[in-house]
Amino acid sequence: METKLRELKGRLAEVFDLNMANALLGWDQSTYMPPGGAEARGRQMSTIGTIAHQKATDEEIGTLLEDLRPYEQSLPADADDAALIRVARRGYEQLVRVPSDLIGEIYAHGAASYDAWVKARPANDFAAVRPYLERSLELSRRLANCFPGYQHIADPLIDINDYGMRAESVRAIFAELRAELVPLVQTICAQPPADDSCLRRGFSEAQQLAFGERIIRAFGYDYSRGRQDKTHHPFMTKFSLGDVRITTRVREDNLSEALFSTLHESGHAMYEQGIERSFEGTPLANGTSAGVHESQSRLWENQVGRSQSMWQHFYPQLQAEFPAQLADVSLDRFYRAINKVQRSLIRTDADEVTYNLHVMLRFDLELALLEGSLEIRDLPEAWNARYLSDLGIAPPSDSDGVMQDVHWYGGMIGGGFQGYTIGNILSAQFFATARAAHPEIDAEISQGTFGTLHKWLRENIYRHGSKFTTDELVQRVTGGPLSIAPYMAYLRQKYGELYQI
Amino acid sequence: METKLRELKGRLAEVFDLNMANALLGWDQSTYMPPGGAEARGRQMSTIGTIAHQKATDEEIGTLLEDLRPYEQSLPADADDAALIRVARRGYEQLVRVPSDLIGEIYAHGAASYDAWVKARPANDFAAVRPYLERSLELSRRLANCFPGYQHIADPLIDINDYGMRAESVRAIFAELRAELVPLVQTICAQPPADDSCLRRGFSEAQQLAFGERIIRAFGYDYSRGRQDKTHHPFMTKFSLGDVRITTRVREDNLSEALFSTLHESGHAMYEQGIERSFEGTPLANGTSAGVHESQSRLWENQVGRSQSMWQHFYPQLQAEFPAQLADVSLDRFYRAINKVQRSLIRTDADEVTYNLHVMLRFDLELALLEGSLEIRDLPEAWNARYLSDLGIAPPSDSDGVMQDVHWYGGMIGGGFQGYTIGNILSAQFFATARAAHPEIDAEISQGTFGTLHKWLRENIYRHGSKFTTDELVQRVTGGPLSIAPYMAYLRQKYGELYQI
Repeated sequence: METKLRELKGRLAEVFDLNMANALLGWDQSTYMPPGGAEARGRQMSTIGTIAHQKATDEEIGTLLEDLRPYEQSLPADADDAALIRVARRGYEQLVRVPSDLIGEIYAHGAASYDAWVKARPANDFAAVRPYLERSLELSRRLANCFPGYQHIADPLIDINDYGMRAESVRAIFAELRAELVPLVQTICAQPPADDSCLRRGFSEAQQLAFGERIIRAFGYDYSRGRQDKTHHPFMTKFSLGDVRITTRVREDNLSEALFSTLHESGHAMYEQGIERSFEGTPLANGTSAGVHESQSRLWENQVGRSQSMWQHFYPQLQAEFPAQLADVSLDRFYRAINKVQRSLIRTDADEVTYNLHVMLRFDLELALLEGSLEIRDLPEAWNARYLSDLGIAPPSDSDGVMQDVHWYGGMIGGGFQGYTIGNILSAQFFATARAAHPEIDAEISQGTFGTLHKWLRENIYRHGSKFTTDELVQRVTGGPLSIAPYMAYLRQKYGELYQI
Repeated sequence: METKLRELKGRLAEVFDLNMANALLGWDQSTYMPPGGAEARGRQMSTIGTIAHQKATDEEIGTLLEDLRPYEQSLPADADDAALIRVARRGYEQLVRVPSDLIGEIYAHGAASYDAWVKARPANDFAAVRPYLERSLELSRRLANCFPGYQHIADPLIDINDYGMRAESVRAIFAELRAELVPLVQTICAQPPADDSCLRRGFSEAQQLAFGERIIRAFGYDYSRGRQDKTHHPFMTKFSLGDVRITTRVREDNLSEALFSTLHESGHAMYEQGIERSFEGTPLANGTSAGVHESQSRLWENQVGRSQSMWQHFYPQLQAEFPAQLADVSLDRFYRAINKVQRSLIRTDADEVTYNLHVMLRFDLELALLEGSLEIRDLPEAWNARYLSDLGIAPPSDSDGVMQDVHWYGGMIGGGFQGYTIGNILSAQFFATARAAHPEIDAEISQGTFGTLHKWLRENIYRHGSKFTTDELVQRVTGGPLSIAPYMAYLRQKYGELYQI
């Protein structure tokens, strides 16, 4: 058994290494690659993705997984080896259904599509990306159809990112949340708007980056196993558990942009940095789902990063860093500015209360595209109509409308958005659990220390990697299933106070 | 035939892409990777190197090459397809002799050895790297012994980097050159030394980098297909013909360091950028040998970059950039400073005249190690003895002695040094040919324009990639075989004037 397990781990490590190499090719594409590298980069990512897929679906892995079944069953379900074999089998059974050629096409198309989007977005040229989106939709349908027997064509794509969820279950959660959010947004938006002009006074890039770094070092992001670079669209990526990187973008006329994206990505990164090191090179060495991943980024960005307690400590430092811009701005005014609720155009800039409305409309549009009830050519119009009906504003351009997010332009349509709202819900549920277990967390945060919280997250969530499914993890950590109650309670209390409602 | 050729090209492109991905892993390791990434990176490079080797030696490639023989023979020898098949076959026949396991061991050992050297060199701790060197020697011998029938055990290793050369032929060239160089060095060193203190006055890093960039843009290095980053040891690397990068290191107390390494690496990079684009993804899309590659870097660094003509144009700009440091330094004094000849310890800092003595002693020591007439444990002593006899100085430490160059610590001993001197010889031979064909080149250089020279190099050398062997290329370009005469004539004229001898 030991030989077979070692053989399995060797094969899984080979696949892991190929995937990590491809992640580096992607990171470089988004950070430092000169324009001339684009064409070959797409082909290279496709080549390596295809080889990784071939290696991952080698039937020898299937045989090993079969041979290891008695050993797996002899172990407790939460033993590392049992989890490794179980999660490896789940991945294998998923991947063997997808032809390697399709994987190659998806990678090659994804790189070309991303390149087209990077050029077309500043030019507000939807026509230039339309054929890429059409191809993305076709490839996404082909991928979904590798998993016949689904209820909804989006189900297999959702399952890849958020194992165990389906269009129907996501819709049910979203409907429940929407019913509570819409009236809350209406009530808040009936109040006088917060004044966030203090965030737009001109802040030097280098100082912004240094200040963001100071906060996330305090959070516990380990720079000896990571770094931050600049990109068009902030993201977290990793090349091993010892090398987990983040990116950000900076606008000198908007202090929020880099600051909160940095806190956000650091949450993703601390999750990966906190995974049990002995899982390195195995399928356990990843966060367990898009939703749980997002819960960690949103927890640090919002539950911590937009809290009054944290800024009690950091705001005087921020004022000292930017005296010309902030000396006359009180903590209270700054706190209201970074929590301003408004109906806005851009998802990534949206406040905590309206954010989920941005996600839900994308999720609905994705389902409609996959179902065939919406055509790509009608997508900008449908997008604008939903912004008008759900958020009360119409995008003035496709750049700030249907072309604002990288997701669909990365080559896949479907399965990519629900995790954001699941993450918001779970961020509140996990944070409430942590605070209940350690009431001292609030006082520590107001002193700029985060050790108790970070340790609790590492012990309860990070270290497990993909060992538990989302459902198992939520049950294990919070003692119950996913629930919107803590999230709504958090929003009502915080924004009730802020807007005196 | 067309189908078979397409099939061959597809397989070669897959290998090319894997090798390019590995090059990116290496670039990242030397530029941006955080320390925590080191362990996994070594494993990843070994994994990808092993897969690339397996793919490159797939017997299907051998069959295709056999099947394509009649087609190859039906073409003129200098047809692109004929060259592709010929060069692919040469590579295949070389690689199939080496077991994949050995490749994996070499990659893994190379990363570990490099890591040990990075730590041991600042600590002057030869004992710490000695076991790595012993293993490198063992692996190098095992690699050489995959090619039985050699005259000298170094021959197969030399052949990998400089196809067609052998220990005996290199020794013959080196002996001829040495006989001329040694008295020249003696004569120059008997003169009063040049004063290069003006290069050590404190130059800001950002300005140095910007100035280097200005010059290599004028040379014709294409930034839309490249970029420059900082590293410990300058190098050129490429990820496709559209993405050819260089690195440099900067010392604020030494203007030469970054400046001339930038010019040097830009020469390597322009060679790769100039390769016929239709060769992309094939074994033709590489410079043809280490020697010819080095001829291009040295041509731009020395023949052009240390010439009086070039600085007639650029020196006033350099003075304007650094007025506090250079306003009182005449062009003549600067020109003498950047061409100061002295017996020194460090190869990469050595002037054009003594440089080859540094190379020759390394080459001799490599041969002795491979032959078994020198043991690793005796290497520091042998090194110091040769520096004393050849250059008249003894290294005060192993850090600035036997541990100064990365080469042996990258995991291989042998085949890595002769190219530097071959390159110096060829740089003069090629440059003399270009000037004879286009006498206007000198006047253009003194006006800061390099179009005629760059075009001549592209037409005659760059675009061919690996299509011709070194011998074929030298014959084709210069009308004769490799000769030290133009190089010695260049040195005698330039340094004769400089030192009035």
